[in-house]
Amino acid sequence: MADPRFHSCAGPFTLAELAALSEAEMSEDSDSALCLVDVAPLDRAGPRQLSFLDNRKYIAQFEKSEAAACIVAPSLAARAPKGMALLLSDSPYRSYALAAQAFYPVPVPEPHIAETAIIENGARVDETCRVEHGVVIGAEAIIGKNCLIEANAVIGPAVEIGDGVIVGACASLSHCLIGDRTRIYPGARIGQDGFGFSPDPGGHTKVPQLGRVIVGEDVEIGANSAIDRGSGPDTIIGQGCWIDNLVQIGHNVEMGRGCVVAGMVAIAGSVKIGDFVFFGGQVGIAGHITVGSGAKFAGQSGITRDIPPGATMGGTPAVPIRDWHRASIFLSRLSDRDK
Amino acid sequence: MADPRFHSCAGPFTLAELAALSEAEMSEDSDSALCLVDVAPLDRAGPRQLSFLDNRKYIAQFEKSEAAACIVAPSLAARAPKGMALLLSDSPYRSYALAAQAFYPVPVPEPHIAETAIIENGARVDETCRVEHGVVIGAEAIIGKNCLIEANAVIGPAVEIGDGVIVGACASLSHCLIGDRTRIYPGARIGQDGFGFSPDPGGHTKVPQLGRVIVGEDVEIGANSAIDRGSGPDTIIGQGCWIDNLVQIGHNVEMGRGCVVAGMVAIAGSVKIGDFVFFGGQVGIAGHITVGSGAKFAGQSGITRDIPPGATMGGTPAVPIRDWHRASIFLSRLSDRDK
Amino acid sequence: MADPRFHSCAGPFTLAELAALSEAEMSEDSDSALCLVDVAPLDRAGPRQLSFLDNRKYIAQFEKSEAAACIVAPSLAARAPKGMALLLSDSPYRSYALAAQAFYPVPVPEPHIAETAIIENGARVDETCRVEHGVVIGAEAIIGKNCLIEANAVIGPAVEIGDGVIVGACASLSHCLIGDRTRIYPGARIGQDGFGFSPDPGGHTKVPQLGRVIVGEDVEIGANSAIDRGSGPDTIIGQGCWIDNLVQIGHNVEMGRGCVVAGMVAIAGSVKIGDFVFFGGQVGIAGHITVGSGAKFAGQSGITRDIPPGATMGGTPAVPIRDWHRASIFLSRLSDRDK
Repeated sequence: MADPRFHSCAGPFTLAELAALSEAEMSEDSDSALCLVDVAPLDRAGPRQLSFLDNRKYIAQFEKSEAAACIVAPSLAARAPKGMALLLSDSPYRSYALAAQAFYPVPVPEPHIAETAIIENGARVDETCRVEHGVVIGAEAIIGKNCLIEANAVIGPAVEIGDGVIVGACASLSHCLIGDRTRIYPGARIGQDGFGFSPDPGGHTKVPQLGRVIVGEDVEIGANSAIDRGSGPDTIIGQGCWIDNLVQIGHNVEMGRGCVVAGMVAIAGSVKIGDFVFFGGQVGIAGHITVGSGAKFAGQSGITRDIPPGATMGGTPAVPIRDWHRASIFLSRLSDRDK
Repeated sequence: MADPRFHSCAGPFTLAELAALSEAEMSEDSDSALCLVDVAPLDRAGPRQLSFLDNRKYIAQFEKSEAAACIVAPSLAARAPKGMALLLSDSPYRSYALAAQAFYPVPVPEPHIAETAIIENGARVDETCRVEHGVVIGAEAIIGKNCLIEANAVIGPAVEIGDGVIVGACASLSHCLIGDRTRIYPGARIGQDGFGFSPDPGGHTKVPQLGRVIVGEDVEIGANSAIDRGSGPDTIIGQGCWIDNLVQIGHNVEMGRGCVVAGMVAIAGSVKIGDFVFFGGQVGIAGHITVGSGAKFAGQSGITRDIPPGATMGGTPAVPIRDWHRASIFLSRLSDRDK
Repeated sequence: MADPRFHSCAGPFTLAELAALSEAEMSEDSDSALCLVDVAPLDRAGPRQLSFLDNRKYIAQFEKSEAAACIVAPSLAARAPKGMALLLSDSPYRSYALAAQAFYPVPVPEPHIAETAIIENGARVDETCRVEHGVVIGAEAIIGKNCLIEANAVIGPAVEIGDGVIVGACASLSHCLIGDRTRIYPGARIGQDGFGFSPDPGGHTKVPQLGRVIVGEDVEIGANSAIDRGSGPDTIIGQGCWIDNLVQIGHNVEMGRGCVVAGMVAIAGSVKIGDFVFFGGQVGIAGHITVGSGAKFAGQSGITRDIPPGATMGGTPAVPIRDWHRASIFLSRLSDRDK
């Protein structure tokens, strides 16, 4: 069970309620009135708890789990231990997410402006917001409804933030517009100058960075990630992108909708990215590259050329993933030959 | 045009004024009295705006740009659309930088110590400085003239900062000396203990880190980058270095003048680096390596040996770039053979 | 000598005292009453200073060092310059660490709660702690004895911190329990939501992150590093781990005791790591991998499969280090063939 000091449980729910909430179907022999008090991982779930099976790596745990009920794909239902109630879903992880959201809803922040928070002249903070201690909100900034600005965050002059946004502790924003329900994690840096200069042996010359960062709705920007503002055009992060911790996004990058960017990815300036592109951890992209929608990059790959839509790439410089695997196998066999 | 909420334009300027400011020459048929109100990218510039062409990737945009005037290399002048005034420069990007600096000069911070800023005993902050809300300046620290210390930054005891320095929001400095006009971006961490310990199965033993970080003049240190102080010697960053976001620099590193370090580079302890070395994104350098002046590293390369001056390297372990390209081509052809 | 503005020296000590403190033995002809006032690197040490030789790369410096005394392995004692007193140790770096700790003991923070620090209702901060300006400590948090919470750090509700812990400037903690004597560097982010969601073209669905981060005793967590809390299970960092700057550790990671994690390592979610595993800089590990105790990873390697105990790996995808070296040599020879 989740530690009640940190997480408040809204249960219990009946199996029927959870089936509806999680958009799943009860298996035939399940008891719709079964009372479930919590969610838990397969190997820790007990008699009144709901679990889920998504990654096939954990089938063995599923087969001996003591969970009272489990969300599972129909194709794996037969491997359930006897007596376990099942919620059948074609997207077990998504169904689990919905059930867990019911048990542990995001708390609505209680409106309050801490007495140590600073709201500069002309800034407008909706009265439904919670602004914690030590926050600094610059002149003419606009903060929408129901936002939570965590302690010691800094929001620069004229920044615009939509409704339901969370800005994490010690994060800093400037020169940016943030869409509704976007969540910025602690220590993220948004809107600072991009890395723009003219290199010269006599001293590099700074190029003024005259754009903004425009972040769409329902975006997540991870802890200590950095997104530079545009140099003239804007840097744009599309609706529903998920960006993990310690990600670097350079000036003028345009990222479409629903992209997933794992930890420590580095995207150089002026890269154009389509929709639903997936970046494994530590991927790097050189400047001025175009990446088509639906492309996928294996962890640590390095992208040095334009990528067509739907391509799956790996390696540095990145090649189609089959070619990369073939090269890896070739190299690993060298040692056998030599032995 | 730049968003006036975030950027204040000092224009207009005449073409003749901009030629002088940008160290460029007007093309013969240009109207020296042409009035320009702003800078803009090629594909967005309009009839009263100045643009520039530097990266050849954008020649097609240049050929159909509606900019009233454009900074361009003499060799590409013939490809300008009819009627466009030209400012000819051998360094178009540098000339653009100078023109853009004229249109958008860095605002001189108005001197002010915010009432919530803390200046500990014995610290000296010049009266020309701007110290924003929530800043903490430790005992005996010295801050020079015309500095801007942004909100919630923390400057440790005895730190010395020169004139015209900007310290970004939520950055922290300790055990360091910072040169004039250096700019430290939000969330950068300078002067903390290096990663020094004696490894031992019975428990690693911490090695006291007794040095400092010494940063030269006109240096840029990007958002959320980290520079550890020396273990006994100092960590030294030379004049005019440009360090991007999320860069890690270990203890005792000595970096010469004018180096360019792209995002997510990791430089291990005690590396000695010459002048004007260029690091692509995500490059890594092992500890105790010496890198000669003028060396260049392709993105994601991994440096495991001393590098002579002027070398251009790629791959992990890094090899001369021609060899790296040859190896990449060889591996990519494997798949053709097998088909 | 260390800059006295930043470091206070507790010397002098006699050679005999230092032999005892550093668990080393005086060489036969050394003067046990020799008075030493400081430690210094080989190339800077003078007549009243103690130095050390550990990395063989610096033997030449040792041979001409002017240090009055030096800690060295018995096997290298014969290469000492004439007249140098020697402290013989099988672990010269560890012995140096102990001697340097004697000269430069970590200052015990003077108990004090800064008047601008906020301690929310129900939080308990031991009276022996030092809490600096701008710190925010959330409701019901517990801070043990002799802790130092540096300026502008944020500690979330119900967080528990043991004795002798240091939390660096601008760091943020939530949903976590921190063991005794653990040190968290400036800007580190601990306990935020992990990167958990069900990907879907219609919009990714957030998975509530219901676990905690549990950090053992004597752990170091570097500047701007991030450790996400578990998704249901906890994220666990074992006793005595050393984690460098800008490291990313995903949800549900379990790391054993004494691991060493160099800068910019990225460990994806649900990775299980044994004891005393060594990660070179910029290593990446894919999710749900198991790594055995004593494994070692070369810098920039990418781990895509389970790793047995004691293995030494390199490359992406990682292979045994000998095979990686062989492949590197093979590729570097391609260019010779072609010439």
